[in-house]
Parts: sequence; C-alpha cells; structure tokens
Amino acid sequence: MGIVVQKFGGTSVGTIERIGRVADRIISYKEAGHQMVVVVSAMGKSTDVLVDMAKEISAHPDEREMDMLLSTGEQVTISLLSMMLEKKGHRAVSLTGWQAGITTESVHGKARIKHIDNERMKSELAEGNIVIVAGFQGISEEGEITTLGRGGSDTTAVALAASLKADKCEIFTDVSGVYTADPRVVPAAQKLDVISYDEMLELANLGAGVLHPRSVECAKKYGVCLVVRSSFTDEEGTYVQEGITLETGRVVSGVAHDEDVAKITVVGMPAQVGTLSRLFNTLATHHVNVDIIIQSSYDAKASNISFTVAGSDLTHALQTLEVSRADLGFDKVEYEEALTKVSIVGAGMVNNPGVAAEMFRELAQQEISIKMVSTSDIKVSCVIASEYADRAVRALHSIFQLDAQEVAVVHGI
Amino acid sequence: MGIVVQKFGGTSVGTIERIGRVADRIISYKEAGHQMVVVVSAMGKSTDVLVDMAKEISAHPDEREMDMLLSTGEQVTISLLSMMLEKKGHRAVSLTGWQAGITTESVHGKARIKHIDNERMKSELAEGNIVIVAGFQGISEEGEITTLGRGGSDTTAVALAASLKADKCEIFTDVSGVYTADPRVVPAAQKLDVISYDEMLELANLGAGVLHPRSVECAKKYGVCLVVRSSFTDEEGTYVQEGITLETGRVVSGVAHDEDVAKITVVGMPAQVGTLSRLFNTLATHHVNVDIIIQSSYDAKASNISFTVAGSDLTHALQTLEVSRADLGFDKVEYEEALTKVSIVGAGMVNNPGVAAEMFRELAQQEISIKMVSTSDIKVSCVIASEYADRAVRALHSIFQLDAQEVAVVHGI
Repeated sequence: MGIVVQKFGGTSVGTIERIGRVADRIISYKEAGHQMVVVVSAMGKSTDVLVDMAKEISAHPDEREMDMLLSTGEQVTISLLSMMLEKKGHRAVSLTGWQAGITTESVHGKARIKHIDNERMKSELAEGNIVIVAGFQGISEEGEITTLGRGGSDTTAVALAASLKADKCEIFTDVSGVYTADPRVVPAAQKLDVISYDEMLELANLGAGVLHPRSVECAKKYGVCLVVRSSFTDEEGTYVQEGITLETGRVVSGVAHDEDVAKITVVGMPAQVGTLSRLFNTLATHHVNVDIIIQSSYDAKASNISFTVAGSDLTHALQTLEVSRADLGFDKVEYEEALTKVSIVGAGMVNNPGVAAEMFRELAQQEISIKMVSTSDIKVSCVIASEYADRAVRALHSIFQLDAQEVAVVHGI
Repeated sequence: MGIVVQKFGGTSVGTIERIGRVADRIISYKEAGHQMVVVVSAMGKSTDVLVDMAKEISAHPDEREMDMLLSTGEQVTISLLSMMLEKKGHRAVSLTGWQAGITTESVHGKARIKHIDNERMKSELAEGNIVIVAGFQGISEEGEITTLGRGGSDTTAVALAASLKADKCEIFTDVSGVYTADPRVVPAAQKLDVISYDEMLELANLGAGVLHPRSVECAKKYGVCLVVRSSFTDEEGTYVQEGITLETGRVVSGVAHDEDVAKITVVGMPAQVGTLSRLFNTLATHHVNVDIIIQSSYDAKASNISFTVAGSDLTHALQTLEVSRADLGFDKVEYEEALTKVSIVGAGMVNNPGVAAEMFRELAQQEISIKMVSTSDIKVSCVIASEYADRAVRALHSIFQLDAQEVAVVHGI
C-alpha cells in the first residue's frame, strides 16, 4: 500500500490526551500497511498565547520575528506526537518545516510553498518510521523560517501529499465534513459526501471554514484526493475529487459566507491606460489580497474603483494606498467595514440561467440591500452588511432546497 | 570598538517586562559603540513546562524528540527580545542555533559544540544589527536539532565570544558574581572581584551554580574574558581571567559543594590489563560522566572500583553497567545516593602543604565522615553524606578565613 498524509488541526492535538487519540488513529493506519506522513498544527490556543506575548511588546511586531516565534508552536506538537507514538511502540520521527525540505517564498506571515525536497521524508519512510511534519512553516532560500499564513497546515499537508504522490490526504478537523452551509448558522445544513475541487474552492469558507482555498487549489493542481473528516468520530467525511457529478442534481450545492470583508473605494482615479494595473500591482506588492473589483466611470477623465479586502487587511491596505496616493494620482479613499460576502455555489449553475436573479429576489424579499455582486460559472456572491448575514444565509439555503428534510423548522431569523 | 557577547539566563528574561529591561541594557552598550551579540535562555520556567508535557507522555522520552521540544523555548525568547529591541528603535535579528552556524556532535541532550560558522552573524553585525542567538542549542552534521545540556547557554555565549574574538563575554544571572561559597548556605560568603580560570573551573558550582564548568573550560581554552554579573543591578561582577594573582593572598579562595552526587562501587573487577579502561570506556560511550575514581585491590585476581557520578545519571549508569556485566566480568555493583562533594579551592594551595590535612581535621571535628577524597594542585574534595553538607561548607568557609568581617555570626549549623 502507498502513502497516506493526515493533517490534525490545533483542536485535535489540544491536550496530551488528545495527542494520544491522534496517535491511536495513525497507528491503526500504519498497522493496516500504509506509510504514514502526518502534519500537525500548534496545540489548541498555544499560537494565541504566543501572539499575545508579541502584542504585549508591539502592536505591529516584525514579521520575520513573528514567524520565528509562531513556528515554535508546531515544533512542540511534532515532538510530543512522536514521543507518544514511540511510547505506544511505533517508531516516529518529527521534522520541522526546513527538515522536511519545504522551501517557500521569502515572504513572512503568508509565504507560499515553492518546492519540496522530499528526500529526508522518503528515507525515513523507507526505514519504517512514521513521519511527523510541522505544518504552517517552511524555510526561504535565504535560510529564514517562514510561515504560510491562514490555513497553512492544510496547505502543508496537501503539498506533501502531492510531492510524495500519496494515495490520499485526510484533513482531520472539529467538524465531520463539508456542509451545504455553516451548521452554526443554518441548523438544517447537510454534510456532502463528495464535492468537486471547483465547488470546494468556492465553498472554501463553508462548514466552519473547514478548508483553506490555498490547500484546495493545490489539491486540484496536483490531483490530490482530499478527504475532510472529524478527528473525534469514525464517521466518513467529505471527499474532494475531480470530475464529480453531484448526486443530487441540485443547481446550488452550498451557501458560503465570509464575515471578514471590508470594501474600499478609490475615488477619482485618472482615466489613463495603466492606472488600474498600477493600483492593483501596488496592493499586490504589499501583499494585500483583493477579492471583488468594480469599476465605475463618472466622467471621461476619472473613475471610481471599489474592491473588497479581508477586514483584517483593511488597515494595512489603507496605509498602502495612502503612501501611494501621489504616485497613483487619485482624489481620496473611502471604506466600509463589517461586511459579509454571501455566496451560492454549484456546478449545476452553468446550465441554469436565472439563478443569480433568484438570489437577488430572495435578498430583496428579506429587505437586505446588496452592495456589490460578483459572479463566476459556478458561483454568485453578494456583499451585504454583516448584521443581515445569518438571515441571508438561512433564506438562501432554504430557497435553493438545501435544508435537510428531517429538519422541519429553521431556527431563528 | 569591538564585539561584546552578553548572555541572559531564564530568570532575566522571565517576563515581557524583564525582556524590556534586558533590551535597555543591550541598547546602552550598542549606543556606547559596541557590536552586540546576545545569547538568551528560555523564559523563566518555560523549559519545565515543556519537560512536564513530555513526562506526561513517557518517563523516558526519546532524546532526539526532547531536543526538538526543548529548543523551542529559546526560540521564543530570541524572537520576543528582537521585537522588543525593534520596538525601542534598534535593528535586531534573531538566530536559532542552526542559523547562527553552531554545529555540534550528533548527541542529543548534551551535545558539545564542534565548530561555529560565524559568517551569518558577522554579516548581520556589519549591517548594524544586534544579533540575538538562541542559547543551549545547535545542529548536528546530519541536520538534527541538538541541545547542549546543563549550562548550555553559558557555553553558547563563550563559544560565540571565542569565534567572534569578542572583547568580553558577560554572563548575566540572578546573583551578582562568584562568591567564596553559596550565599544561601553561607551567609558570610563574599563576592570575588576576580578569579583565575583554573580556580573558577574548580569553583564552578559555587555561587548558585553561576557558571557551568564547560563554559569556563571553553573560556580558558580560547582566552575569553568572562564576566559574571547580575542582570538586576549595575554592580560590577566577577572577572574570570588568566594569570590572576588573588589580591587577598588567601590560601583557599572558595568552598564549593555539589549536592547531586552518587557513588558506585564495582565489586570484583578481574585484575587484567585493560579492564579499567574497558569499564570507563563503556561508561563514556553511554555518556555517563564519571568524577572521582578510587581503585582498591583486595587480592591478586580482582579489585573494587568506586567512582562518583551525578545523582541524576545514577539510574542510567547502573543500567549501562548491568548490560555490560558479562563483557566486563565483575561480580556485582553497589551504590550510595544522597551524597555531596565539598571542595576547597585556591591557587595558593600549591605552595601550602597541610591544607588537605586541615580540611580533614575540621570535618572530623564536626563529626562528619569522609567517604571519598580527591585532590588536584588547587583543590581538595571530600564526598560526604548530604545531610551534613551545609554544616561542612560553613565550617570550612570559617576555618579558612573566608567569612566576611562584617558578618559576625554564621547562622544555623
């Protein structure tokens, strides 16, 4: 049998006792004949403790030093899990990001993996060892410790699975799979048995943000069979695979929402060739991720450009714009916080015109005003005020017939 | 001006507030024109917390994994101290053991430094950065994280000072220097202004175990000017240097004691050429440090060999002997725990015969029986039962005229 990569998040390894249960699960796979590579996050809230210490020193600690600090969290977990496996009679070896050969960009806080030198991992597997790798971290070509940012450990797991040509990559988390909506918001949400990479990418923030888009992108690119499942039960999870026909024939397969959205409007951008590209190049250079973009011309000489960023990136984005103001030549910047992006996702939408219209109609019915819209082949997203987010998600989940039949009443509004 | 290496122990960096005070001290040196390299230990009791987690898993966790675990402690401190220096307006860069180029033996838990590639440190200094290095850790030639064992951070500091040809190496600790005896045991103990490497080596466990012998050995070997001083005051500390004539003209300059001693007796070793060397080779191979050795022949065919080891190494030493029993051909092993080695140290002893006799007489007067004796040019050590340790140290401190004049009464017994 081949290699299986498993990833356990912070909650799954939050205590020594839980690390013991994780070890038992790994051992059951090992004893079934698989070669095991396991990626773990920092224990429970330990990363928060480290962040708090840094914040006690500075509101904006140096990013290189933050990576130096935060990368210790995973290093603690890998050593404890290895000890636990050895205590239970199995040979294991822990590897930091750099020991596992994970080379990243020279960016701190949200580096992307450039390549993986899997020689060390392969030789450890060949010797019969269970390989435990620190998630979320790597090393730049200059020898600096880097971290991968949000969802980093998922990305580590998928990248290792791709590099090692693993049979599958199982992401263990505190929910039992991918849901048609966040079950905390929509009690009638249902677990999906299987979903395509593209849908998963769009739904990436569904089901308690169970998978980060980066890890799904990587899985799609390298054809990694990804499984999302609970670390606390033996329940089957959700398979994320290529070329899946949704068994239900539903047009919409899920409702996603992201509550960390801010909208920035750059007013009075000169209408010259290249200004748009300069604006977004500047933001990209400063690692501000832009999502939805809308341009509206108001006269021949200038236009307004609105776009969304993560709420947590807002301050940094505004600073970046302020510094670049003279260079870019715009009049002023306006912004709006506390916004939510609500999206309906489904591979079946391609052949069903009118889905977007149905979504807008339902939101109007709920008296929720739409601030921005963005569409793709398999998705329609609307930006609304966060105060209406839960109501919008429940209404859309219901109107697109996603509510589980056994749940008769959707609670609350 | 040249390079100054400073080392701050766990107590000195135990809180964010204390890290702030450490930063202020570093900055005052930097502003005086020194190039600064700073070695730090893990914060306060954080290493104990890590050890406790490991012990929760296994009484004897794998040593490689322990190094993986424990090395995170210093990594946390270096990043926080760098952030603090940057917050206070100074450029700093933290380096793990491997980033600082510290290569060690391939031994876990007590590796020795083999060589230091100081290129990275030098280039950071050349760019005007304060360099913060994680103490206690390095990397083996196979790329494994290693730790240096007890006193490891002191050794790191001295080794860096030697490699960088620093003007001096200041060891900041929670006592204000090297004392004539442990002030907690002997209230009349006095701080020494200056001491030779050889005396310091012998006294290494004095003054709250202020310096580890390994760091003193390294300082002596490379002629590093070592200063021991308090991180909480501006008081002058104790200089450890070559060729120092003790200003006092005292025969004995200090009384040291080590309460972590166990005695092992190997009974009935065959009296053949090479048996002694095989016995101690076996122990050395298993990294058991042996201190005092006494051989007593009881007939032509066999002899008894007694030696002391650290109390914490006793179990490991006994296991090693048990495994090697057939090979070494002895009859049995006896051992005794809870022993203390009390030593008098002084460069002046070379020219003063009778010092040992005076020590034995005083111990006899105190009705303390001597179990083993060991002497060198500048030292006499006696192994006694630990229950008499404090009484012995105070009596010897007094009889050799080390008591501070202003302290009239030595407390307790």
